[in-house]
Order: sequence, then C-alpha cells, then structure tokens
Amino acid sequence: MSFDPDTLTYNDAGLIPAIAQDAETGDVLMMAWMNKEAIQRTLETRRVTYWSRSRQWFWIKGETSGHTQELVDFRIDCDRDCLLVLVNQTGAACHTGRRNCFFTSVQNGEEVELAKPIT
Amino acid sequence: MSFDPDTLTYNDAGLIPAIAQDAETGDVLMMAWMNKEAIQRTLETRRVTYWSRSRQWFWIKGETSGHTQELVDFRIDCDRDCLLVLVNQTGAACHTGRRNCFFTSVQNGEEVELAKPIT
Repeated sequence: MSFDPDTLTYNDAGLIPAIAQDAETGDVLMMAWMNKEAIQRTLETRRVTYWSRSRQWFWIKGETSGHTQELVDFRIDCDRDCLLVLVNQTGAACHTGRRNCFFTSVQNGEEVELAKPIT
Repeated sequence: MSFDPDTLTYNDAGLIPAIAQDAETGDVLMMAWMNKEAIQRTLETRRVTYWSRSRQWFWIKGETSGHTQELVDFRIDCDRDCLLVLVNQTGAACHTGRRNCFFTSVQNGEEVELAKPIT
C-alpha cells in the first residue's frame, strides 16, 4: 500500500510526535514533532526534519549545529498517531551537547544525571 | 535533587508523552500519555501506568491482557516535556498482539508490515 501522510492522525495543531532512535545503538535520542510537510521532506531528503513549535518553521535537524540525523527507517505505530525514525546520528542529538535528551533518571525519588555533554 | 512531578511540563490536557522501550532488546515498544498521578503510580508501584485519553482513566498496562510493563528505569528529557520508561515487557506491548506498535515501515513510498502478531 502506498504511504499517504494524509492517513496519519495529527493533533489539533496538525502535528504528530516523532521519536528518534539511534539505528546503531538503539538509544532513544529525542522526541520532537512533525507536520505533514516535515514528513514529506524527511522522506524525500532522508534528512530528518521536524516542525519547530517555538519557531513555527521547519527544523532540519543539525542544519546549524552539524548534528544531523540521516534517515535509516521511517515507522508508523498501530494507531497511526506516532512516528519512529531510526537514524544515523552525527554528534549530539541533544541541544545540551549530550548524545541523547534522556540523560536524567529518577532513582529512589532522586534525579540522577546519567551523561555529560560530549561536545 | 528530589524528583517532583510538578516540575515537568504538561500539555493543555495535563498530559506528557511517555515512550516505552524494552530494557532488554532496546526496541521502542509504544508511546502513550501520563498525567501527574500516573507518573506517581508508575514510580510507586513499578507497574507502568498511563492515562487513557479515550477512557479518561488510569491505564495500568496489562491489567486485563496480562501484558504488563515492569518499570526498570524512568527518564526525563532535557526539556522536561517527554518521558522514557525502560521496561520489562511481558508478551505483546501492542493491542494488535504484536511485540511493539511500530510494525509498519515506509520503504520507497510503500507501507511494509515488519511483524506479525505473536499472540
């Protein structure tokens, strides 16, 4: 069946959550949002492109930082309201300079920092 | 620092997305939503508990199906607006009977089914 972005379920703002996973290590890197055109751009360019809610514009991951995400696989969940992109991540996925955004763990009621910036 | 669920950022409905990842295989299993009390219940019981938007009630994963998620690690992202729960998944995470919800891949413009139901 041909993929049609119109068949996905978007929220009231026309957005769908996209989880980025490192294709090599399996680490979950980040979660951001795409709209229909960001999905089309991601699939066409193989450069993962989100929709920036703060800037209200396309956010080609790594365009300024160089920390790009090359698309390896594009997946849709059973409810068609969430995406998973497997990527080749260059450098840090997180704006804090860490490899991934989920570097804070809650352990016995305390927040524990699992990773330091790599850049 | 003590973890306080009040310090997280929730959407207008009081919800925050939670990604579930298999602690053993690294597979991303599903994405669902939690509210503040679901987070507290998850941390206290170690049984992953979401907020069901359709039923407007707590959704203790696997309560009826037996396909439970035992919490292994609870992580917060850099913006404090997304959660990652590492879990020991019993059986299928997906309501379709598949191990995970992201079983549809888009390849050369076509949808490809990557997995069949295991249950």
